[in-house]
Amino acid sequence: MPDSQHDLTDSAQPEGENKHDSLMDVAEPDDAFLLASEQEDSVAAPRRALIVIVTDHPGEQSDSTSQLVNELLAEANFRVDGAIVVRSKKSKIRQAIETAVVGGVDLVLTVGGTGVGPRDKTPEATRSVIDKMVPGVAQALRSSGQACGAVDACTSRGLSGVSGSTVVVNLAPSRAAVRDGMATLAPLVHHLIDQLQQSSVQ
Amino acid sequence: MPDSQHDLTDSAQPEGENKHDSLMDVAEPDDAFLLASEQEDSVAAPRRALIVIVTDHPGEQSDSTSQLVNELLAEANFRVDGAIVVRSKKSKIRQAIETAVVGGVDLVLTVGGTGVGPRDKTPEATRSVIDKMVPGVAQALRSSGQACGAVDACTSRGLSGVSGSTVVVNLAPSRAAVRDGMATLAPLVHHLIDQLQQSSVQ
Amino acid sequence: MPDSQHDLTDSAQPEGENKHDSLMDVAEPDDAFLLASEQEDSVAAPRRALIVIVTDHPGEQSDSTSQLVNELLAEANFRVDGAIVVRSKKSKIRQAIETAVVGGVDLVLTVGGTGVGPRDKTPEATRSVIDKMVPGVAQALRSSGQACGAVDACTSRGLSGVSGSTVVVNLAPSRAAVRDGMATLAPLVHHLIDQLQQSSVQ
Repeated sequence: MPDSQHDLTDSAQPEGENKHDSLMDVAEPDDAFLLASEQEDSVAAPRRALIVIVTDHPGEQSDSTSQLVNELLAEANFRVDGAIVVRSKKSKIRQAIETAVVGGVDLVLTVGGTGVGPRDKTPEATRSVIDKMVPGVAQALRSSGQACGAVDACTSRGLSGVSGSTVVVNLAPSRAAVRDGMATLAPLVHHLIDQLQQSSVQ
Repeated sequence: MPDSQHDLTDSAQPEGENKHDSLMDVAEPDDAFLLASEQEDSVAAPRRALIVIVTDHPGEQSDSTSQLVNELLAEANFRVDGAIVVRSKKSKIRQAIETAVVGGVDLVLTVGGTGVGPRDKTPEATRSVIDKMVPGVAQALRSSGQACGAVDACTSRGLSGVSGSTVVVNLAPSRAAVRDGMATLAPLVHHLIDQLQQSSVQ
Repeated sequence: MPDSQHDLTDSAQPEGENKHDSLMDVAEPDDAFLLASEQEDSVAAPRRALIVIVTDHPGEQSDSTSQLVNELLAEANFRVDGAIVVRSKKSKIRQAIETAVVGGVDLVLTVGGTGVGPRDKTPEATRSVIDKMVPGVAQALRSSGQACGAVDACTSRGLSGVSGSTVVVNLAPSRAAVRDGMATLAPLVHHLIDQLQQSSVQ
């Protein structure tokens, strides 16, 4: 004699398929449902991202930053193609972003080079690649950076926009700027990628 | 307590007009007061607004959006000259804004075409009409859009500025963006119109 | 009171250097400490600022604004070189800013001329002087102006950026805009000056 309720239900099943149907009311899924479900999956699938670390002193700190961005991107449902470390030269930064755009990633995230020093060239390099500026993302990073005390984020000259079908965003380099910035930008960037994918489908 | 005191004062009034005068110290308004009062009224009079709905699929939804904007503009003390529905072509949007500017409306409000898709042309069309950019209005729309979860408002490429003596503002198309946006922009736009009217008077 | 205490300490010193030492537990600073202390002092030392009041009607109000900005700058650890009152002409405003930049001040703060009227020329004049725009400061002024009800601050066309090694920021003219603006910009501007001083040292 089975004890558990689950077993009881199972043993009751043979009595008549009608009873099971009336309880669960589940029919075989039709083709339209399967297609919709598949599309839902494709939207929820991870997007591809590339990290570009801009620094004149590659080493422990840039490795640590790269790892942090990597983790936060994964949490935000991005699959990270890789992290490139480039010197703070306009041509090098531009080249790294362009290669990623041509490679078809959904998001290029740069870290560093957004200040007002003579070696800070990331916004200039990014400007030359972006087709359409989307100022709201960069400003959201500045506002929330100010709220959380990441003063390098608030004074960042970083840009955000679209190049081809790729979203490009500049982050300030402090760990606070990266942590706060990732939380702020993730839903906005996903919305932009949604728009870009819809318009290419329709 | 204040109410009862008010009632007392009122009931005391029949006793003698002199007393009332001594309490309120109100003389016949002189010409200067009447003029000032008239000017105050002219400031409080409704301003003229025109709605430009940008869409490639005119129909029920654009009618519904148009009606919503109409109602919210009326609540914000604007008299709506009309709502024009135009296709998302740069020349068409530009022409609609320019006609309204020449017609002397105080505010042109466009709705839609502010995203990053290939058919989104509203910011480009608006840019070509605006004389002076006023970035604070567009950014206030993005910030409050982010706060209220209108992600299309937060990532909007919409602009705000002045063309001639007309304020021009781009709104994102979702109902949330329109509702929240109207609440945000009304006091700012009225302030801008105040400035434009003062400077043309002085 | 602080003075008298200072005098007491001074008068106590002759009694015996040992007693002073035992109370304060101060050893002779070594060279490294002196160097660090000197560097710390140089960072904590007041930065130099210049105020540019833009108005077509110099008088009591501009004097009062000038005094308010002066006090708030002093509270924010700036030493004010002076306040210049200029007419709202692009060439005059530009000249005032450029003279201050050449003179090596750390911050030029303009007040007024940021609206949309035909006489408002401060942003245009500032644009022609700035090498690198830092949009976050100007936007922080707009956001907090909106929050505190300084509508002229929220709709301000004011800019912020760096010219040479000088930070330049435009403020809207109302007292609310000045008060709130100073509280908002002080930490951001100090951070920018830190960056500019570091990069010129390294």
